[in-house]
Amino acid sequence: MSTPDIAELGDRVKAASRVIAASRDETRCEALRGAASALRDAEVAILAANQDDLDRAGRDGASATVLDRLTLTSSRLAAMAEGLETVATLHNPLGSIVEARTLANGLSVQRVRVPLGVVGIIYENRPNVTSDAAALCLRAGNAAFLRGSSGALASNKAIVTALRAGLAAAGLPQDAIALVEDTSHETAVRFMQLNQVIDCLIPRGGPSLIASMRANATVPYVLDGDGICHVYVDAGADLDMAEKIVINAKVQRPGVCNAMESLVLHEAVASSMLERLAKSMSQVSLLGDERAVALSSAVSPASDADFDREFLDLIASVKIVNSLDEAITFINDHNSGHSEAIVTADQDAAEQFLTRIDAAAVLHNASTRFVDGGELGLGAEVGISTQKLHARGPMGLEALTSVRWVIRGEGQVRL
Amino acid sequence: MSTPDIAELGDRVKAASRVIAASRDETRCEALRGAASALRDAEVAILAANQDDLDRAGRDGASATVLDRLTLTSSRLAAMAEGLETVATLHNPLGSIVEARTLANGLSVQRVRVPLGVVGIIYENRPNVTSDAAALCLRAGNAAFLRGSSGALASNKAIVTALRAGLAAAGLPQDAIALVEDTSHETAVRFMQLNQVIDCLIPRGGPSLIASMRANATVPYVLDGDGICHVYVDAGADLDMAEKIVINAKVQRPGVCNAMESLVLHEAVASSMLERLAKSMSQVSLLGDERAVALSSAVSPASDADFDREFLDLIASVKIVNSLDEAITFINDHNSGHSEAIVTADQDAAEQFLTRIDAAAVLHNASTRFVDGGELGLGAEVGISTQKLHARGPMGLEALTSVRWVIRGEGQVRL
Repeated sequence: MSTPDIAELGDRVKAASRVIAASRDETRCEALRGAASALRDAEVAILAANQDDLDRAGRDGASATVLDRLTLTSSRLAAMAEGLETVATLHNPLGSIVEARTLANGLSVQRVRVPLGVVGIIYENRPNVTSDAAALCLRAGNAAFLRGSSGALASNKAIVTALRAGLAAAGLPQDAIALVEDTSHETAVRFMQLNQVIDCLIPRGGPSLIASMRANATVPYVLDGDGICHVYVDAGADLDMAEKIVINAKVQRPGVCNAMESLVLHEAVASSMLERLAKSMSQVSLLGDERAVALSSAVSPASDADFDREFLDLIASVKIVNSLDEAITFINDHNSGHSEAIVTADQDAAEQFLTRIDAAAVLHNASTRFVDGGELGLGAEVGISTQKLHARGPMGLEALTSVRWVIRGEGQVRL
Repeated sequence: MSTPDIAELGDRVKAASRVIAASRDETRCEALRGAASALRDAEVAILAANQDDLDRAGRDGASATVLDRLTLTSSRLAAMAEGLETVATLHNPLGSIVEARTLANGLSVQRVRVPLGVVGIIYENRPNVTSDAAALCLRAGNAAFLRGSSGALASNKAIVTALRAGLAAAGLPQDAIALVEDTSHETAVRFMQLNQVIDCLIPRGGPSLIASMRANATVPYVLDGDGICHVYVDAGADLDMAEKIVINAKVQRPGVCNAMESLVLHEAVASSMLERLAKSMSQVSLLGDERAVALSSAVSPASDADFDREFLDLIASVKIVNSLDEAITFINDHNSGHSEAIVTADQDAAEQFLTRIDAAAVLHNASTRFVDGGELGLGAEVGISTQKLHARGPMGLEALTSVRWVIRGEGQVRL
């Protein structure tokens, strides 16, 4: 079977998206439940395909982290199937009337929530993204046009075959979930430029993917960028609370985007906090400015670049500030638009911080780790937007929809 | 005085945007009213600067249309000043709570409407865009970073000077409204790539500007694209109403994006409609498919490309279809995502059309000319988005805002 050209495949996905947009929500849910069954039924085939990917990655000398991300197991596959069923239980985002009014000339004007159309997802090694992203796209009335990595191609093909069986069983067009099987860089660039097909492209990957999107994409896109998240411990902080939040934000899962990368300490509490953390967070390497180094032997000197790094590891930068104002300016200059927290008992300081910090999420007396679609009640997430247009922060079903003006008249014309 | 480098100017605009974001709404309104006064006071200087632009354009052989767009008069300037005052009377979009809930762990989670930050506007000849766009950006809590055309540079500089006087009088930083005075192509491309400065870029111009945005922009943007708008006259249409709507959509102002470019006729009414329009809309050249040509001597043969053209003139393409389904497919294949209308007394047909057509605005028994921020009650518009992300259709103040997650706790950490 020859691989279809990406433009030809795109046309088929676009055509399928129109059928999906006009389908009933219950039919889409039925397709998701059918896909879950098909995924379970295909366990042997999917795990065999995954083993092929793992063998190839092993021969290519992939790191343990890469291998772990790529690995499917019986229980990971069961979780993916359950994820499909969960998405079918979420609140239907479509059809709701965002705004309605009647104009003086009698026109009825509504803004109604509708599907985006074709959502493109371009992602790296994790094969579970294939089913998670496809499920959210489908439930929101869209076709999912997927471009995974070459390293996970066999796994992704096997997963997509199961998902498409779910669509077919519900009487929906199989091309509503389609995988780009040509994983060359050239085809990735063509994918990013399919303006007649893709209504929204969401990249899920590291800085090089983001850079390629910025350089090449001509379709509308939403960036799921880095998380350089700060926790600021204010002069008015309860230090027990601050210690607990800092440790949770840094240590609970250091490799994710909502982990703390930089600790900002008011000078009034800097010494006490560093003394506490030297004991209770000793597994974390602290890279600080001159004042932090002078205050604690647990702190090594940071370079300027360290304050703009997403370590994704048991490392944190430490900055000492003289005031809340300095903290806000520092964080606005160094954050990546993800999640920023203040710990303080001073309500005025908290409100200043919550108002003036420019990020997708701002938190008072809570760990940055809560900024996640599941934790915040979205049910599931397709990514976390670090830009300000369309969707900001964790993106659930609503982020995969658009709004249309629907205007009803009785022959009105403009004067 | 030397022109600052665009990156340096950008940094100043970014810094000013933070002050604006933290300013009171009343202060921003005061600045708008002050700018209106300053614009009126500077009438002589602005008209003189505009005359310089007009003289240069005349020497360069500009068309009458270009000269008309560029021309400021005492009354146009008065309308601009009034526009600034009107924007100060609109509903403040900021601070509203889009969604609020308390999680099981006690965290209070809100989504709050906030400014975008720095809004870039890149536009062609009309100098009134300078004050209209700056006013909407400022009222929504943003800095306005403006890049107009070289042909209107003297006019734009004079207008921006007045707008900045309004900011200064209200105690706000003047760099919250800034004009890029280097109008070279190279600088326009750098402008489209100022990712550390521009949170949202809105182009207002023709296809070549849109193509340049797609090719060069790395900042997030919302496209104000073409309007290839259709009116479909269904088998169940009241032909008197259909005739009135078609004429209004085509003739009332043919040069704008919400004018009808293509007429789609159900075969049951095609002959009668063409007979009526041959008389009542004889000033319009009709370019039709074979069936339309066969039905009426008023119709000339269209090329395939004519069905994808935005004529912006007294020309319309005509397509005859056998069914509502065929009309919907045809319009979905040829529209530009702007505004599409059906005329019919058949409610089922109308709902099919309103649901299945993929465009920013869909209308039943009303002229496409209503799709306009002023007509739809937005007070003013910064453009009409033909894409599906962030803002769709006419963009008012809300389109110039973002939403931030605000999370308040009492020391919660993630388990």
